[in-house]
Amino acid sequence: MSTPTTRIVLASRPQGEPTPANFRIEQAVLPDPGGGQVLLENVYLSLDPYMRGRMDEGRSYAAPVAIGAVMDGGTVARVIASRHPGFAEGDWVLAHAGWQTHALVDGASLRRKLDPAVAPVSTALGVYGMPGFTAYAGLHEIGKPQAGETLVVAAASGPVGATVGQIAKLRGARVVGIAGGAAKCAHVAGELGFDVALDHRAPDFAERLRAAVPDGIDVYFENVGGAVFEAVLPLLNDFARVPVCGLVAHYNERGRPPGPDRLPELMALILSRHLTVRGFIQRDFPALYPAFLADMGRWLAAGAIAYREDVIHGLEQAPAGLIGLLAGRNFGKLLVKLV
Amino acid sequence: MSTPTTRIVLASRPQGEPTPANFRIEQAVLPDPGGGQVLLENVYLSLDPYMRGRMDEGRSYAAPVAIGAVMDGGTVARVIASRHPGFAEGDWVLAHAGWQTHALVDGASLRRKLDPAVAPVSTALGVYGMPGFTAYAGLHEIGKPQAGETLVVAAASGPVGATVGQIAKLRGARVVGIAGGAAKCAHVAGELGFDVALDHRAPDFAERLRAAVPDGIDVYFENVGGAVFEAVLPLLNDFARVPVCGLVAHYNERGRPPGPDRLPELMALILSRHLTVRGFIQRDFPALYPAFLADMGRWLAAGAIAYREDVIHGLEQAPAGLIGLLAGRNFGKLLVKLV
Repeated sequence: MSTPTTRIVLASRPQGEPTPANFRIEQAVLPDPGGGQVLLENVYLSLDPYMRGRMDEGRSYAAPVAIGAVMDGGTVARVIASRHPGFAEGDWVLAHAGWQTHALVDGASLRRKLDPAVAPVSTALGVYGMPGFTAYAGLHEIGKPQAGETLVVAAASGPVGATVGQIAKLRGARVVGIAGGAAKCAHVAGELGFDVALDHRAPDFAERLRAAVPDGIDVYFENVGGAVFEAVLPLLNDFARVPVCGLVAHYNERGRPPGPDRLPELMALILSRHLTVRGFIQRDFPALYPAFLADMGRWLAAGAIAYREDVIHGLEQAPAGLIGLLAGRNFGKLLVKLV
Repeated sequence: MSTPTTRIVLASRPQGEPTPANFRIEQAVLPDPGGGQVLLENVYLSLDPYMRGRMDEGRSYAAPVAIGAVMDGGTVARVIASRHPGFAEGDWVLAHAGWQTHALVDGASLRRKLDPAVAPVSTALGVYGMPGFTAYAGLHEIGKPQAGETLVVAAASGPVGATVGQIAKLRGARVVGIAGGAAKCAHVAGELGFDVALDHRAPDFAERLRAAVPDGIDVYFENVGGAVFEAVLPLLNDFARVPVCGLVAHYNERGRPPGPDRLPELMALILSRHLTVRGFIQRDFPALYPAFLADMGRWLAAGAIAYREDVIHGLEQAPAGLIGLLAGRNFGKLLVKLV
């Protein structure tokens, strides 16, 4: 038997905002698994902001996707055939199997098996996976919110921001979330339980943020950049920590914005306020992953951490999904259901 | 008895580069010490870049000097009368007694007694004092140079830079020092034993720096900013650390420089290279001070750390000394000998 797969490849590199023409859908046929290999049916594909960086040549923290290659991406998959002793037909696995319906992978490359009894398998791409671990690691290693401190996070209805705020609340911090639009803000202040939710589209957003943090900001978890960062900067307290895991507001930018040049001002603020600004990705902290799985599994089982998924259907919807994600049009963790 | 003192006060706030007109020399008479007080004769006054910040209103990490108030500054002093049980006439002490020949202070405010048998007392203002501890703490807590890594530091013939490089060498790092002019570079590569010394005034400085760090930069100890920082940025390795203790190239600037705006670019680099950029002053790490005194005392006694002092004579020379320091005209730790 050989297995047909449908896949989306990178057709061309975007100039600024990606368009559907940057992607191409293709058919292929996968051979049967060789020794150590596993044949997967991808059930959920994760769409994440980092994918924009992979579409560019040598700009992001990971190697770019080559023109004509399958787009990178995490998936939740079922094993449909295995020649690896660790995996059997029917197993649920977390894979990095890309934008395709089926994939042939080395069993050794699979990240972990998933137990649907612990949490819905889709969460392995969100709150219980890379975005959740990004939140957990960034807070544990860099942000270190203390009881009574104030934390601010943007994209607060997204999977990283939502998890950041809820973990910080569990640690006793006061949490201000920023999101785009009334529906997201209602979710952030409601289901997610943040102390304050602010709409960054409000014309007086900077003033509202100032009013929302009467004691200043001790942790700003940076995942967007842009106008939110500008509003945050003057409000940072001495010894504030700024974990930087994303700058999605800038991913579609081309070239340098006009002046004045605020780089010296940022450095002067880092000095005068004793700030820590540190870039990271979750893979920087592999030793912390078991603790994350244990803590988050417990929190999810107890209902202490809420999450929201935004599921679109069909692989052919993935390009539009990513384009929308970069514009903030998703509401919760964006997943493509492939089956 | 009452004691006359000569002092320099802040006459006006500078617009950009300070001028002699920003300072005024005054005479005063000090009363005899009350209970707990100590009367000091300042012997050495330290001149340091941070003093420029104190001349501005609310710009630096410490409270500004008020108009008409004595300029702030660390001193090495002799006790000439004491009503504090911890100090006796003739003791050498490290004080923060300002730009004046004599001072009446609370004994509790004195930082430590000095033993001329351990090291020349003037070093308590340099390698064995605040600048040396800045180097030690910044490396210990933030820079963390490892054997085989590459560290770059500017103002390498100054008391912070010289100490940074020598401690990093003791830890097995490869050290590149940057200084202004041939004489300073010869000192950095000679007496101080750096692996490479580079003159930032060379027209091809950026290319020379690139050639001097074939394996990239793992630690950039930031004490100047400006063109050196710009040359360093593209050479920073993944996971590089940037302790920020000073930005002397910018202290005399007024307003924001013209564009393009490189703030988003710096943040993108912090993210993509997993950088840690952290501002600090040595007072942030009081728990480390005893270890510094022990280690540095040992290194000085063994001749493992060299230092150079640039001594000018007479309190009235202090304003010109500070103006020159901000322009890089000192060569080594700048001290004013008052007696």
